Amino acid sequence: MGDMGRVSVGIVGASGYGGVQLVRLLQDHPKVELAYLGGESSAGKTFADLYPHLAHQVDLAIEPVEVSTIATRCQVVFLSLPNGLACQITPTLIEKGLMVLDLSADYRFFDLETYKNWYGTERSDRQIAAKAVYGLPELYRDRIADSQLIGCPGCYPTASLLALAPLLKQGLIVPETAIIDAKSGTSGGGRQAKTGLLLAEADNSLAAYGVARHRHIPEIEQICSDLAGHEVMVQFTPHLIPMVRGILATVYATLRDPGLVRDDLITIFKAFYRNCPWVTICDSGVYPQTKWACGSNLCYIGIEVDQRTGRAIVMSAIDNLIKGQAGQAIQCLNIMMGWEETLGLPRLAFYP
Amino acid sequence: MGDMGRVSVGIVGASGYGGVQLVRLLQDHPKVELAYLGGESSAGKTFADLYPHLAHQVDLAIEPVEVSTIATRCQVVFLSLPNGLACQITPTLIEKGLMVLDLSADYRFFDLETYKNWYGTERSDRQIAAKAVYGLPELYRDRIADSQLIGCPGCYPTASLLALAPLLKQGLIVPETAIIDAKSGTSGGGRQAKTGLLLAEADNSLAAYGVARHRHIPEIEQICSDLAGHEVMVQFTPHLIPMVRGILATVYATLRDPGLVRDDLITIFKAFYRNCPWVTICDSGVYPQTKWACGSNLCYIGIEVDQRTGRAIVMSAIDNLIKGQAGQAIQCLNIMMGWEETLGLPRLAFYP
Amino acid sequence: MGDMGRVSVGIVGASGYGGVQLVRLLQDHPKVELAYLGGESSAGKTFADLYPHLAHQVDLAIEPVEVSTIATRCQVVFLSLPNGLACQITPTLIEKGLMVLDLSADYRFFDLETYKNWYGTERSDRQIAAKAVYGLPELYRDRIADSQLIGCPGCYPTASLLALAPLLKQGLIVPETAIIDAKSGTSGGGRQAKTGLLLAEADNSLAAYGVARHRHIPEIEQICSDLAGHEVMVQFTPHLIPMVRGILATVYATLRDPGLVRDDLITIFKAFYRNCPWVTICDSGVYPQTKWACGSNLCYIGIEVDQRTGRAIVMSAIDNLIKGQAGQAIQCLNIMMGWEETLGLPRLAFYP
Amino acid sequence: MGDMGRVSVGIVGASGYGGVQLVRLLQDHPKVELAYLGGESSAGKTFADLYPHLAHQVDLAIEPVEVSTIATRCQVVFLSLPNGLACQITPTLIEKGLMVLDLSADYRFFDLETYKNWYGTERSDRQIAAKAVYGLPELYRDRIADSQLIGCPGCYPTASLLALAPLLKQGLIVPETAIIDAKSGTSGGGRQAKTGLLLAEADNSLAAYGVARHRHIPEIEQICSDLAGHEVMVQFTPHLIPMVRGILATVYATLRDPGLVRDDLITIFKAFYRNCPWVTICDSGVYPQTKWACGSNLCYIGIEVDQRTGRAIVMSAIDNLIKGQAGQAIQCLNIMMGWEETLGLPRLAFYP
Repeated sequence: MGDMGRVSVGIVGASGYGGVQLVRLLQDHPKVELAYLGGESSAGKTFADLYPHLAHQVDLAIEPVEVSTIATRCQVVFLSLPNGLACQITPTLIEKGLMVLDLSADYRFFDLETYKNWYGTERSDRQIAAKAVYGLPELYRDRIADSQLIGCPGCYPTASLLALAPLLKQGLIVPETAIIDAKSGTSGGGRQAKTGLLLAEADNSLAAYGVARHRHIPEIEQICSDLAGHEVMVQFTPHLIPMVRGILATVYATLRDPGLVRDDLITIFKAFYRNCPWVTICDSGVYPQTKWACGSNLCYIGIEVDQRTGRAIVMSAIDNLIKGQAGQAIQCLNIMMGWEETLGLPRLAFYP
Repeated sequence: MGDMGRVSVGIVGASGYGGVQLVRLLQDHPKVELAYLGGESSAGKTFADLYPHLAHQVDLAIEPVEVSTIATRCQVVFLSLPNGLACQITPTLIEKGLMVLDLSADYRFFDLETYKNWYGTERSDRQIAAKAVYGLPELYRDRIADSQLIGCPGCYPTASLLALAPLLKQGLIVPETAIIDAKSGTSGGGRQAKTGLLLAEADNSLAAYGVARHRHIPEIEQICSDLAGHEVMVQFTPHLIPMVRGILATVYATLRDPGLVRDDLITIFKAFYRNCPWVTICDSGVYPQTKWACGSNLCYIGIEVDQRTGRAIVMSAIDNLIKGQAGQAIQCLNIMMGWEETLGLPRLAFYP
Repeated sequence: MGDMGRVSVGIVGASGYGGVQLVRLLQDHPKVELAYLGGESSAGKTFADLYPHLAHQVDLAIEPVEVSTIATRCQVVFLSLPNGLACQITPTLIEKGLMVLDLSADYRFFDLETYKNWYGTERSDRQIAAKAVYGLPELYRDRIADSQLIGCPGCYPTASLLALAPLLKQGLIVPETAIIDAKSGTSGGGRQAKTGLLLAEADNSLAAYGVARHRHIPEIEQICSDLAGHEVMVQFTPHLIPMVRGILATVYATLRDPGLVRDDLITIFKAFYRNCPWVTICDSGVYPQTKWACGSNLCYIGIEVDQRTGRAIVMSAIDNLIKGQAGQAIQCLNIMMGWEETLGLPRLAFYP
Repeated sequence: MGDMGRVSVGIVGASGYGGVQLVRLLQDHPKVELAYLGGESSAGKTFADLYPHLAHQVDLAIEPVEVSTIATRCQVVFLSLPNGLACQITPTLIEKGLMVLDLSADYRFFDLETYKNWYGTERSDRQIAAKAVYGLPELYRDRIADSQLIGCPGCYPTASLLALAPLLKQGLIVPETAIIDAKSGTSGGGRQAKTGLLLAEADNSLAAYGVARHRHIPEIEQICSDLAGHEVMVQFTPHLIPMVRGILATVYATLRDPGLVRDDLITIFKAFYRNCPWVTICDSGVYPQTKWACGSNLCYIGIEVDQRTGRAIVMSAIDNLIKGQAGQAIQCLNIMMGWEETLGLPRLAFYP
């Protein structure tokens, strides 16, 4: 237990956007203390070398990733590493009693065969992986509360699943008609310099990518199947939008009951998310803008029914780096620790 | 006939983005001469008052809209007015022998009942309207060549229909499964100052609008029905993207034959658009970026098949103000005049 | 005194960007309670009609602007009105004992002749105006603490003066050589729909405006003169930048002592702002990005000396709507109430 | 001589933004034929691999850089390489009779000592370098016409010098008071992936860089000195703007004659640039927007005089990749070949 009874927290992979969000958010969290920042390529640098605007606020350096150091220093650790690395250190961290919140894909899958098929890596930590809980609190709050290891969802799955969950859980749609047309700001691509993510390339332009093969597909389908009670396949297409932050998922699905109207669905969604402080259902006729969610942990959901075509159209907007990543991980931590689910998380965007 | 044998052309509604595109494009057209600019609210101003960057190049003033003046001065007139105005002056212009290319919705519909249902205006020019041809050259080139009155397509319908046409015409998809998720830059909203189109509001954000009720829906469905040979309803959702120009339409539809693969569709699309200089089918695995089309009259089409779900996903990218508006109108004019379809139109974007 | 001992606060002119910032910031302030929102054109609407993303958080309606209502309901009132309106209601508000923080230009000037020359309005509230304090806490903290009426600085003057103050106060530069090249995001232009602020016009472009005649010039010169101890004229040029929030002021001035080096100035600036929690001096060789300040009340200052030319170049970055407007007003309120100067204000940006 | 009497042209370093501009512009040039594309890292790829949107238009592959191949294939060669490489192959190319237009810094300096001091490289091609002409046609048109080797100006120097030249040449300003506050879109940083140029980093933000030490300083000073007739030092500060293309240089200088007014300067500038088809002087009170120049070879210049401070403020706007780079090189070629200076170059931006 750290200073003033605060829980000591570490971040492995602190140099990327996931890391800097965690650092930023944890600065405002009243019950944790940042005790360790780890990284490989940036080890030895100060955090201010990487993010000079935090120089007056954060005076930690990036340390090499050593499990024993982490275990000595931290009670909780966030892993913000490329896929395939968390699973190498998590078993030991768990064994040493730490709570682990992994932001990569490593602990998101119920069945490691799916992981292997889509990520190409054989895994040797099946027992540990079996204990992991999928960190979407709106669906798995109770299991998160009892878990020591969380596989935090991807940004696209968070937005997509929050839009689809009430429809699937209540059996309101024909699952195989579900199409998710998702749009993301470029920060989702991380801080590594890639030509396609340069402002000169990505600004004032727009394109789809990873069509029919994006790695978030199996993750979305896994949870959809869990909600529907049977195997579900969905269409998922991500697009790169010329903006920094934010995801909008526009979800289409055919309603089983063509008599349902917009206000029916709004009522159903409100009931479904009644105890979810981070989900806001828009009023009738209001569709969410991604900017509304930026800098907050909120998910805004707008709902429409097209009576001509018999489809529901659900739009969900999140900040891809907060509710879609770091904020949601802290939301999970709050639940694991028995704290208020909203503790220390930003409630509102700055607008405009 | 104007100076040096050039065709004299007028633009009514020259102050908006449609107007300035026409002015800009016609500056580079070797066979026309700009003879008249008309407008109501800006009458009396010079064009340079509205667009100072053209001061050294265009020295015309905006004149009041008088049909007799237009008829005296012009052989061809482009109407770039709000919906419901073109139909008031077109009959006289046609009667006086002018060629009319209308950029509004007034002459896009085979059946004026549809127009009335979606635009709310009763029409008294049925005979003239019956002569209008829908100005999408890739589908109606021959009829355009013989016509005196063109109802130029909307920007969304242009992108959507070029993506859907080969699929519908060849009967490759189940028409009622077609979902068009469309994304547009904000210039599509015109030059009128609206709060939602301010940079402060629209930048770094993204939202859907007009879900299930956008006025481009009946226009898309009319042409889809014509292609399919029976009544077709489609799902169409527009989104406002934080960029100036460009539309991407992402089109989903279930294939009738689950055995079709991506390269089959590419072959079919290439054949379908063989004689279309303004449509480019991307190579296998390449998806179009809107920026590729910006500042040109091109439509880029990318094609994917998801064999897991049995759907085709077709993405088409255009410059909403050129191929989606002014450029396409000039393409129609070229055809009407028997000129090369590409004459005077920009062939390539500047990139980046 | 409001609920739970909180100070009851009103906002007149709540519908604009200044208003929504105040509403947003005050949501997180532990010692105030929002008791009144006033406006003329939007009276009768709910705040959620104007800003739907706050619907779940703010359930106040916009009321007509009636001084008696405000005085009954509020202990403190922020005026976020167009220039020339605050001076009409402030005398009565002051008389009734309210604390008034005016975000317009009405109470910024020591000499109302200057106001009249630049804003064109004759004033009849000289006695009240004489009591107003210029609300830049880093320079006038003590006087703010004792005042009942604050004329909050403009966004450009805030950035410009924080960059210039140590240089002028210590007599380090030749005052008449000072040139301020300032750059602002378009939110500085407010929420009124103006063609030039449309995304389609302002995005991917850049221009100067108001060269040699912007109304922030006399305000900057007034404070510069106060700091220098004699009349000072400065060059000030604002530019509109294709981004939503943020101001960067790049300030040039000839050093009196050509032997001064960068680190000397950094030392001097750090000393000057030692007790200023909202000013951060960048490390040697680091220049501030506006994004670092966005969503926070911070001002980042970077310093360079060009030994070849003998000039200091000082760059200051703020969020124009927070430290440049609403946040600074709350900072003033904190000082007036004897609270911590940082109370309830956001300390850090989200990055990226 | 190539096909149809066209001049055969090669581009070395075709993969970057300079290269793709040249390829794009030369597609529309009626007197040249693209005969060779060279590059090191991308040798073996097709140009369409790098820029898929040109696949239907350009079917050349990138070849290794071999001087003998270039000399066999081309009459003219554009070198678009990192600094320090052009000087290695240019002597042989010149010897073999080719016309060489170098877009790097290698042949911009009258005195190679300056080059060495700022670029750190010793040079062994002094004789060849002595024959190079600085490729700013508005100032050195006659010498360009007679030259075989052009050192094309940097983007910032082009904008800066066109704003300063009339003032310096006519002795209207005190040279040492000149301050250039320059703002550039991020495409000026090239296509190499750098973290700071990512959209996620650079969008919605703004900062200065290279203050007091940017390598374009000696280039600007060299030409200023040439114009003034004595050594001149200037202040130059570049800023990175969240947009793709465009440079705005805001230039400040103290007038020698305080009686000069804006319209005097406009008259002087118009006379100075009378025979310059690519420079447009804005009307009185009009300041240029960078977007006006984008996609064209134009430089727009706006002029203001601040009578209070006695300074001229001149703003010049160009497309950094066209008039600031590739377009200007083609303008030089036109002059070298005795063609119209405007041949094949885009005259107008698309707006918005």
